[in-house]
Amino acid sequence: MKTARDLGLIPEGRLAAGPDNAITDVPGVAVGHRSLRGEGIFTGVTAIIPHPSDLFRVKPRAAVEIINGFGKSAGLMQVAELGTIETPILLTNTFGVAACTEALIRRAIAANPTIGRKTSTVNPLVCECNDGSINDIQALAVTPDDAMAALDAARPGPVEQGAVGAGSGMTAFGFKAGIGTASRRLRIAKCDYTLGTLVLVNFGAAGDLVLPDGRRPDPRASADSERGSVIVIMATDLPLGDRQLQRVARRGGAGLARLGAFWGHGSGDVALCFTTADPVEHEPPSSITTQQRLSDDHIDLSFRAAAETTQEAVLNALCMAPATPARGGRTYPALVDWLKENPRR
Amino acid sequence: MKTARDLGLIPEGRLAAGPDNAITDVPGVAVGHRSLRGEGIFTGVTAIIPHPSDLFRVKPRAAVEIINGFGKSAGLMQVAELGTIETPILLTNTFGVAACTEALIRRAIAANPTIGRKTSTVNPLVCECNDGSINDIQALAVTPDDAMAALDAARPGPVEQGAVGAGSGMTAFGFKAGIGTASRRLRIAKCDYTLGTLVLVNFGAAGDLVLPDGRRPDPRASADSERGSVIVIMATDLPLGDRQLQRVARRGGAGLARLGAFWGHGSGDVALCFTTADPVEHEPPSSITTQQRLSDDHIDLSFRAAAETTQEAVLNALCMAPATPARGGRTYPALVDWLKENPRR
Amino acid sequence: MKTARDLGLIPEGRLAAGPDNAITDVPGVAVGHRSLRGEGIFTGVTAIIPHPSDLFRVKPRAAVEIINGFGKSAGLMQVAELGTIETPILLTNTFGVAACTEALIRRAIAANPTIGRKTSTVNPLVCECNDGSINDIQALAVTPDDAMAALDAARPGPVEQGAVGAGSGMTAFGFKAGIGTASRRLRIAKCDYTLGTLVLVNFGAAGDLVLPDGRRPDPRASADSERGSVIVIMATDLPLGDRQLQRVARRGGAGLARLGAFWGHGSGDVALCFTTADPVEHEPPSSITTQQRLSDDHIDLSFRAAAETTQEAVLNALCMAPATPARGGRTYPALVDWLKENPRR
Amino acid sequence: MKTARDLGLIPEGRLAAGPDNAITDVPGVAVGHRSLRGEGIFTGVTAIIPHPSDLFRVKPRAAVEIINGFGKSAGLMQVAELGTIETPILLTNTFGVAACTEALIRRAIAANPTIGRKTSTVNPLVCECNDGSINDIQALAVTPDDAMAALDAARPGPVEQGAVGAGSGMTAFGFKAGIGTASRRLRIAKCDYTLGTLVLVNFGAAGDLVLPDGRRPDPRASADSERGSVIVIMATDLPLGDRQLQRVARRGGAGLARLGAFWGHGSGDVALCFTTADPVEHEPPSSITTQQRLSDDHIDLSFRAAAETTQEAVLNALCMAPATPARGGRTYPALVDWLKENPRR
Repeated sequence: MKTARDLGLIPEGRLAAGPDNAITDVPGVAVGHRSLRGEGIFTGVTAIIPHPSDLFRVKPRAAVEIINGFGKSAGLMQVAELGTIETPILLTNTFGVAACTEALIRRAIAANPTIGRKTSTVNPLVCECNDGSINDIQALAVTPDDAMAALDAARPGPVEQGAVGAGSGMTAFGFKAGIGTASRRLRIAKCDYTLGTLVLVNFGAAGDLVLPDGRRPDPRASADSERGSVIVIMATDLPLGDRQLQRVARRGGAGLARLGAFWGHGSGDVALCFTTADPVEHEPPSSITTQQRLSDDHIDLSFRAAAETTQEAVLNALCMAPATPARGGRTYPALVDWLKENPRR
Repeated sequence: MKTARDLGLIPEGRLAAGPDNAITDVPGVAVGHRSLRGEGIFTGVTAIIPHPSDLFRVKPRAAVEIINGFGKSAGLMQVAELGTIETPILLTNTFGVAACTEALIRRAIAANPTIGRKTSTVNPLVCECNDGSINDIQALAVTPDDAMAALDAARPGPVEQGAVGAGSGMTAFGFKAGIGTASRRLRIAKCDYTLGTLVLVNFGAAGDLVLPDGRRPDPRASADSERGSVIVIMATDLPLGDRQLQRVARRGGAGLARLGAFWGHGSGDVALCFTTADPVEHEPPSSITTQQRLSDDHIDLSFRAAAETTQEAVLNALCMAPATPARGGRTYPALVDWLKENPRR
Repeated sequence: MKTARDLGLIPEGRLAAGPDNAITDVPGVAVGHRSLRGEGIFTGVTAIIPHPSDLFRVKPRAAVEIINGFGKSAGLMQVAELGTIETPILLTNTFGVAACTEALIRRAIAANPTIGRKTSTVNPLVCECNDGSINDIQALAVTPDDAMAALDAARPGPVEQGAVGAGSGMTAFGFKAGIGTASRRLRIAKCDYTLGTLVLVNFGAAGDLVLPDGRRPDPRASADSERGSVIVIMATDLPLGDRQLQRVARRGGAGLARLGAFWGHGSGDVALCFTTADPVEHEPPSSITTQQRLSDDHIDLSFRAAAETTQEAVLNALCMAPATPARGGRTYPALVDWLKENPRR
Repeated sequence: MKTARDLGLIPEGRLAAGPDNAITDVPGVAVGHRSLRGEGIFTGVTAIIPHPSDLFRVKPRAAVEIINGFGKSAGLMQVAELGTIETPILLTNTFGVAACTEALIRRAIAANPTIGRKTSTVNPLVCECNDGSINDIQALAVTPDDAMAALDAARPGPVEQGAVGAGSGMTAFGFKAGIGTASRRLRIAKCDYTLGTLVLVNFGAAGDLVLPDGRRPDPRASADSERGSVIVIMATDLPLGDRQLQRVARRGGAGLARLGAFWGHGSGDVALCFTTADPVEHEPPSSITTQQRLSDDHIDLSFRAAAETTQEAVLNALCMAPATPARGGRTYPALVDWLKENPRR
């Protein structure tokens, strides 16, 4: 299927996309999916691995912004307090959080047998959306093994988008949605950096979507109210300080709003931004460490990239998901079909 | 001058505007301006009075959302803690905050001589943007008397918009901007309510503005970077609870983002929402009071209204401000002139 | 064993304790424990049930304060956004959160088969401390059945304290600790109210404890650094508004600090306060509901009760836990033994 | 007069005080007072200058914690967003904030004539308590000249404490209070650091004070309810990151609670912590700067110092203030007199 950019939906901007226009354009970042299909089951797990080393020992710095907190994600409180993540990030459906949590704990203990014994415990990071419109969420279909499979499938390079992994059963603005990604390159003082975003898209009332050219695709077949959620995961290699990471994460909300969203009451809208620069070691070699920090004079570039990649990644999730039957019998249409039926004049 | 709606910029939505399409459509709310003009002086004060009674004795409930905190507003901390306002809201330039603060204190003491003696002190509420591109802000031109004049000028009914009052010297997206307002009517369970918004507009880099139809007006004459600020004041008569008010205020940021903003680093972006329903008395007649509260099942209506009125009010501030010379010699163009030169095809 | 009050540790204050000096003095609140004992296993689950009706359909209003966020509790983000809880509150060890989460989901679905199908999903509320000093936390010994057993054991009336339920393996200030509780009666305008607190105590460096009479018990046998966590659950029947609940929860931190704590880096210190007054119905009968709200003029009484009950509940957890062997071979002493060896002069 | 330490009130702890046991033990920090006395006037201004260079050009990093936001301080929002301060910190009475704000703006413009013209505006930082029990606050006695005088009086070295500067008219726990200070030395990896705290003390209900030895001084003459406020300013030369500074500031609340406070409703309790390490330049020489950052493994030392210095500084403010007549005719007693009348057995 075609990306939003292939379909001509993304206006030329001030910042170029990375080579794969994906979160994996940030060096070291890997993504993997595990898709579950079965009787009434249309769900899965998506794993984002910030870097190839042991994350418990070398913790990427991160920050989180709760755009609207109607959600059940795990692990965000500690990220907010300490500014680090120490496991991969798993995305799944709302009732899959416990299974993913258990997988992350077991995996961390396997790699670090002192966890909870001679050193601290570990903070599993799992975010979720409710795919109950398409998937039978009561089946609690996701198992720790599925989470392991997503983690094992993680690779750098191009990211599969649309109705895959955790995105399998997601919908948005009355259309089928799922996983999307996008990236921007940032050039600061002769150095190149990347900010990449991956989204799990499950928000927006039918009729509220606004395309960058001002068109408002209306999926007549469906009449969803604003419900569901969206998870925005940003990765960068910019040397951002703790406070800066939080400010960048917040701009995920701007990207959502540009699409017509108003962060609905029933939506669990969460943005998280991590940097691969200057991670925090679990056992630092000295009591004082040195960190690089981008001057705030340049931070607007990363704000712009955060808003743009979030917007484009959501459009990708919509453009790359095919029409899919809902649990109730009706079908969630594909945005790409609406675009074909409604050519720009 | 014509409003954004007159100019055909506002797409038909699900919610109708109020009779004056202004914050004053909320019963009891009054707005007044004091505009200062002189040698290098192009600034002023705008007053928003939530209801006609003594605000110190009958405190409207309110909440605040700091979208980006690069600003010098006064009084927000106490609003965040207590959820009430107890003076009018004054808008002015960054260095006019102290003068406006003094005016609000003196006015409150004149009406309530026990303040700071037999009862608590008073929390003056003053928000600001930096109009230094047009106004000589170092002159500290705003006096307590100017603040009093804006308060005395406050009236219900239509609100003067554009380069007036605190909006005199403001600019946005490379265009001249200022004060704007808009409102929406909400019908819930056979009852009519209103949410109205007034904005002081001074944000957005040249070239970043996106109109609702997807066009991107580029003021070639100017090359402002994202700087400045925006103040979003929302009024409603909806019986919103404390937590709900904060959630509505937050949606002001969505309205800004729909215009292309990403809440720039150098911008002091603040949203405040108050309700005239169930105010808090300074000396309540009993220890337990009763409050009405809208069910969260209906709150998306107010979120939608918050985003839409913020977006439309900003467009009004842009559409109704004429081209104006800057301090440096160049001129900030008017959006309306760009619209004439660039007719929609 | 004797309570802190029986031992003469609690100075006479302005507020009297409730009949059981327990969180269950708040009408409707029930507490149950499930204690696990086995080879290396010394852990459990404690359940707090806010009222006897279906919590998903009749949601108590609540607020949360993150005192120090080094913790892995589940469900707090949604409480912060919506101000309601919709399941019982489970306390357990850090790696038991996933099992307890699953139990709460299954129980909610069993009672409300439309969850995740025709209505929203459910937000399981689970808080935790790390009992790894005594319990083999890597064994992941807590199962969903254990959580169910704690829920089924919940009763009004006196609460078992000390090394029981989730408190089985907890330690504090170098002593054995566990579960503690306390309550205060509040008389406002001829009406009686109660605020009760239950704590899961696992914080404080050896030597830092300060008793109300200024003595500093030093458990020479142990040399724990500040680590671990504390969970503070407050219940009340006071008609507190959303904002007031959050302010009351925050005062849990004051109660901890009075004991010598400084809310250490490695501690997950969380306070949650719920009220049984004016709960929120899942399907409210009308769009506007009426809530009672205590005047802020009286709120200091609830702040005082929050600080006092937290302080006393922690002392109870310490006083009622017997000396217990640690995983490493040494023993965590009992505070009551120190008190016997160090009689007040 | 004697300090709390001279009076034997401070138990021997794990950390030693600095040479002057004052905020000025942090190299570069200076403090100055301006005390106003006159007909009904008993107030003033206290200035804290973080380092001797131009603060607008070399901005100390800082963070703020709102313990209870019933207050009218100016400048905190921007500190929270950007993590820097760019003027001295002025303390004064509630209605003196506007005058102090104006003084800071004028002083910054005098040193940096491009402010508000070619570069950004400046964020004046002014904190306050209500001294209306002793001072006629309605007189608005503090002028910009008084603020300038306090700034000009600032010196390193010993700090005058008690009823001086902004502390002139303050009261606490029913006793006369004012300005207090204390410090702790921290040794980390063979390097010496200092954390010093200065407090403006005006909080606590009569009868609630708890001394470190458990005694509860009761000023029978007075019956103040919890009202007023407290400002806690911490300085350090520890290389703390942005997030760490905020966590240290939060521990000021622990120091207050150890004295019996529960952060009363009517109290504006604010803590701010700045570091002189790695300040942020207004015009940084390069886009990437390097910062040192203390490992979190050592941060408990600074938490402990924050709580201890806050507690001791408040006791100093109480111990060093003489009995003083109130506006209403009665007298606020001195804690030192109570101590004489109630010798420890």
